[in-house]
Amino acid sequence: MNIRLVLNFLGKLFVIEAALMLPALGVSIAYGQGDAMAFVYAILTIVAVSAPLIAIFRSKDQQMYAREAMAVAGLGWLLMSLLGGLPLVYSGCCSFTDAFFEITSGFTTTGATIMTDIEALPNGILFWRSFTHWIGGMGVLVFTTAILPTIGGRGAHLARAESPGPTFSKLTPKLGDTAKVLYLIYLALTIIETVALLFAGLPLYDAVIHAFGTAGTGGFSNRALSVGAFGNLAAEIIIAVFMFLFGINFAFYFKLINRDFKGAFKNEELKLYSLIAFGAILLITLNLISYYGDFFTSLRYAAFQVPTIMSTTGYATADFNLWPSFSKMLLTALMLFGACAGSTAGGLKMTRLVMLLKMARREIRHAFQPRKVEVVKLDGKTIPEETLSQVSMLFFCHIMLIIAGAIVVSLEGVSFTTAFTTSLTCISNVGPGLELVGPMGSFAGYSWATKVFLSFLMLAGRLELYPILILFSPAVWRRG
Amino acid sequence: MNIRLVLNFLGKLFVIEAALMLPALGVSIAYGQGDAMAFVYAILTIVAVSAPLIAIFRSKDQQMYAREAMAVAGLGWLLMSLLGGLPLVYSGCCSFTDAFFEITSGFTTTGATIMTDIEALPNGILFWRSFTHWIGGMGVLVFTTAILPTIGGRGAHLARAESPGPTFSKLTPKLGDTAKVLYLIYLALTIIETVALLFAGLPLYDAVIHAFGTAGTGGFSNRALSVGAFGNLAAEIIIAVFMFLFGINFAFYFKLINRDFKGAFKNEELKLYSLIAFGAILLITLNLISYYGDFFTSLRYAAFQVPTIMSTTGYATADFNLWPSFSKMLLTALMLFGACAGSTAGGLKMTRLVMLLKMARREIRHAFQPRKVEVVKLDGKTIPEETLSQVSMLFFCHIMLIIAGAIVVSLEGVSFTTAFTTSLTCISNVGPGLELVGPMGSFAGYSWATKVFLSFLMLAGRLELYPILILFSPAVWRRG
Repeated sequence: MNIRLVLNFLGKLFVIEAALMLPALGVSIAYGQGDAMAFVYAILTIVAVSAPLIAIFRSKDQQMYAREAMAVAGLGWLLMSLLGGLPLVYSGCCSFTDAFFEITSGFTTTGATIMTDIEALPNGILFWRSFTHWIGGMGVLVFTTAILPTIGGRGAHLARAESPGPTFSKLTPKLGDTAKVLYLIYLALTIIETVALLFAGLPLYDAVIHAFGTAGTGGFSNRALSVGAFGNLAAEIIIAVFMFLFGINFAFYFKLINRDFKGAFKNEELKLYSLIAFGAILLITLNLISYYGDFFTSLRYAAFQVPTIMSTTGYATADFNLWPSFSKMLLTALMLFGACAGSTAGGLKMTRLVMLLKMARREIRHAFQPRKVEVVKLDGKTIPEETLSQVSMLFFCHIMLIIAGAIVVSLEGVSFTTAFTTSLTCISNVGPGLELVGPMGSFAGYSWATKVFLSFLMLAGRLELYPILILFSPAVWRRG
Repeated sequence: MNIRLVLNFLGKLFVIEAALMLPALGVSIAYGQGDAMAFVYAILTIVAVSAPLIAIFRSKDQQMYAREAMAVAGLGWLLMSLLGGLPLVYSGCCSFTDAFFEITSGFTTTGATIMTDIEALPNGILFWRSFTHWIGGMGVLVFTTAILPTIGGRGAHLARAESPGPTFSKLTPKLGDTAKVLYLIYLALTIIETVALLFAGLPLYDAVIHAFGTAGTGGFSNRALSVGAFGNLAAEIIIAVFMFLFGINFAFYFKLINRDFKGAFKNEELKLYSLIAFGAILLITLNLISYYGDFFTSLRYAAFQVPTIMSTTGYATADFNLWPSFSKMLLTALMLFGACAGSTAGGLKMTRLVMLLKMARREIRHAFQPRKVEVVKLDGKTIPEETLSQVSMLFFCHIMLIIAGAIVVSLEGVSFTTAFTTSLTCISNVGPGLELVGPMGSFAGYSWATKVFLSFLMLAGRLELYPILILFSPAVWRRG
C-alpha cells in the first residue's frame, strides 16, 4: 500500500470539502442566525488538518492501484463525514458523535437523522446538512475526478471502488469527461427540479433543500413532517417523479441526450425497476383503501412512498409506520435492492436483482437438465462468470451484514422490528425504517456506540461493502 | 418426463405410508380413546388410491432421471402430507386444510402446529403426528431407498433431490447400503434417547414422542408447554444434547463407528456448528442474566433454546418470545442456516455457510488483488465452481422466498415480526417464530389459504426449493 499517496490524496479531498462549506457559510451569513462562525471555525480546522497532509506526504509513484483506491474511498468518506460534522459541533446543535452520524447519513445519502427538533436549527446548518446529500449523491470522488484534473487517467480504480453499481461503463473515452457529463446531468436535473418546486409554490430555500435531498436520494428535510408538511399536491408529484428519475442509471440520460433512443430503452434494469415500482404502487394503493377510505387518497400516498423507498430517498408524506401490515412489509422489502445502478440510489441495485434472477433461473433449469450450459445475458451482452460470482457474493455479504447489524442494534433493547429495519435502512441508505425509526421517528434514542456502528453500516452500504470491510483487514495495510 | 414411472412410484410410496400408520393404529387401540377407526379408514383410503396407480401405470423404461426424481420428491412429499392428514380429518380433530398443514409440518420436521389444545387429542393421533417427524427426518425417500430393494442402483438421482445438504457422499459403494447404514444410526440414536428419557423419569409414551421429535428435528410435543411441561432438568439436558447430536452430519457417526476418528473430526462444518452453538449459548446466557436474575437459570434456558433453534427442532423450555431483544434476534438469526448438512435439520445448513464465508473472503481478497486466482476448499478438498454457484443461488432463492413469504403472510394483518418470523420458521423448518407464532403460540389463527401457502413454504424449505419450484414449471412436465 502506498500510504503516502493515500494521505496526500486525502489532504486534497479535505481542502475540497472546506471549499464546499462556503455556500453554507454564505447562507448562514444571509440569514444571520448566529451559525456563521461555526462554519468559519470548521473551515479553519479542516485546512489545519489537510495542509500538513499535502505538504508532508508526497509520493513519487503516482499510480493508484486497487488497494490504494479502496483505502481512499473508505477513509475518504469516513474522514470527510467526521470533518463535515464540525459545523454542527461548533454551532452547539449536537454532540460530536451525533454530528458524525448526521453527516455520515448526509454524505451516504441515507437521510437517517438524530435531530428531534429540526425546525429549530439555523438555516445555514440545515443547508449544509442537505448539501452533503447532494455532494454524496454523485460520490465525493467522482465529483473530484471531474474537478481535480491532476487525477486524469488514473482515476479508473477510484471510480470502480466508488461508483454505485457493478459497471461504471465509460460513456466517453476519458474517465474525467464521463464524470463531467454525469455531473452536468446531475446539476441540470437538480436545477429543473428546483424551478419546478418554485412553480409549485415552495419558498426558494425549501425548494433548494428538497432538490438536494431528491438529487442525492438522501431525504433530509428542513421540516419535521418532511414533504408532508407542505400539503402541496403539485410539490409531492414533482418530488415523487424526480425521486423516480434520480433512481435511474444516468447512462440512460446520457444516451437520451445523444439521441441514442434505442440504446437508452434497451435496458432490462429500467424495465424491472419500472415494473416493480408501478406494481408496488398498485398493490399498496389497493391495500390502503381500507385505511384511507378512498382510491385517490390511497394512490396519492402510495405513489409517493414507493418511489421514496425504492430510490432510497426517505422523504415522507405519510407515516407509513401506521399503515396496514402488507404495505409496511412490501415497502421494507423494496429497501433491499433499491433502484438502478449508476444512479444516486443505495441498496443492492436493480441490475443485480436482474442478474441474480437470471442466475437462479439458470440454476433451476440446470437442476433437471444437468448437461446444458447456459450464459447469463444482460441487455443482450454476456455477463462474465466472474462478475456473476461477485454479484452473488455481494448479495451474501449484504444480507449477512443486515443480520449482524440487527443483532448489534438489538442490544439496545428495542423491538425486533425496530432493530431489523434500523440495520436494513442504514445499509441500504434509505433513512426511515419502522416503529421507533419510522418516517416520523428519529435515531436520537440510540447510544453513541450504536450511532457510530450505524455510521459504519451506512458507509459500508454506500461503498458496497468492500472498501469499508477492507479498512478492517490488516493484510491490506502491509507495504507492497 | 416419464409420468407413468412417477405415478407408479408414488403409488408404492403411498402403500408404505399406509403401512407406517399401523403402529399408530396399535397405539390408538391400546389407549382406546376412540380414534382407531380413523386410522382404519385412512389406511383403506390410501390403499384405494394407490392400488390403481400401481396397477395402471407401468413403465418399460425404469430409468429415473433428474426430472423424474425431482417430480417424485416434490409430489411425493406433497401427496403423502395430504394423505397423512386423513386420520386427523376422520377422527374429527381438525379440518382438511388444518390436517394438511399439521402433517406437512410433521413430514417436513417443522413442528409448527395449528393445534390449540394439544393435550385434549387422543394418544393415537398424537403418536402419528410425532411419528411423521421421525419418518420425515431421514427423508421418506431415503427411507424407502433402504427398504424398497427394487430401486437399488437407480436411486442416486432421488437421493440427490431429496437428501438434506449439498453433498450426499456415498459412504458405502452401493447407495442402498448407505441408506441402510444411515437409517440404522438414526434408529440407534432414537432408541438411546428414548432409554435415557425413561431413566430421567419420563413416562414411556412421552419419552417416545419426544425422541421422535428430537430425531427428526421436528418439535411436536404432546404437552402444551412443550418440554418445559416436565420441569425435569435431566430430561432437558438429554433432549438438548440429542438435538445437538441430530444436527450433526450422520457421516460423522458412520466414520466414528468405522474408527476413522481423523476423518470424523476433519470437519470444518462441525467446527463452525459447535463454535456458533456454544458462542450463542454464552451470549444469550449473559443477555438473560438481567431477565432471570442468575447465571445458572440463564444458562439452563439458553443451553436448551439454542440447540432447539439451530437444529431446527423447535421444542421449548421457556417462552423466548418474552426474552430481551438481543436473545430473540440472535435466535432468529440462527434459524437461517440451521445445523449441518446430512443431518435431519432444516435451514440452509452450516456447510453452505462455511462455503459462502470462504467465497466471500476470496471475493474480498480479489477486490484488491485482482490478478490472484484462488480455489475454495472444504476439509482439504477443492469445491468445484459449479457447486459454489449452486450454493450461492440456493442462498439467494432461500432469502427471496423468505421475503416473498413474509409479504404474503402480512396480508393476514399480523405484525411485521409475526409475518417475517412465520415465513422464516416455515422455510427453515424450525417451527416456532416470534409474537403470535412464538413457542407458546400457534398457527391456528391463519386463514386456510395462508395455511396452504405455509405448507408449500415448509415443503420448499425441506426439499431445498428446487423440487417444489419445479412443480410449478411447465417446461418440466413436457414429455421428453
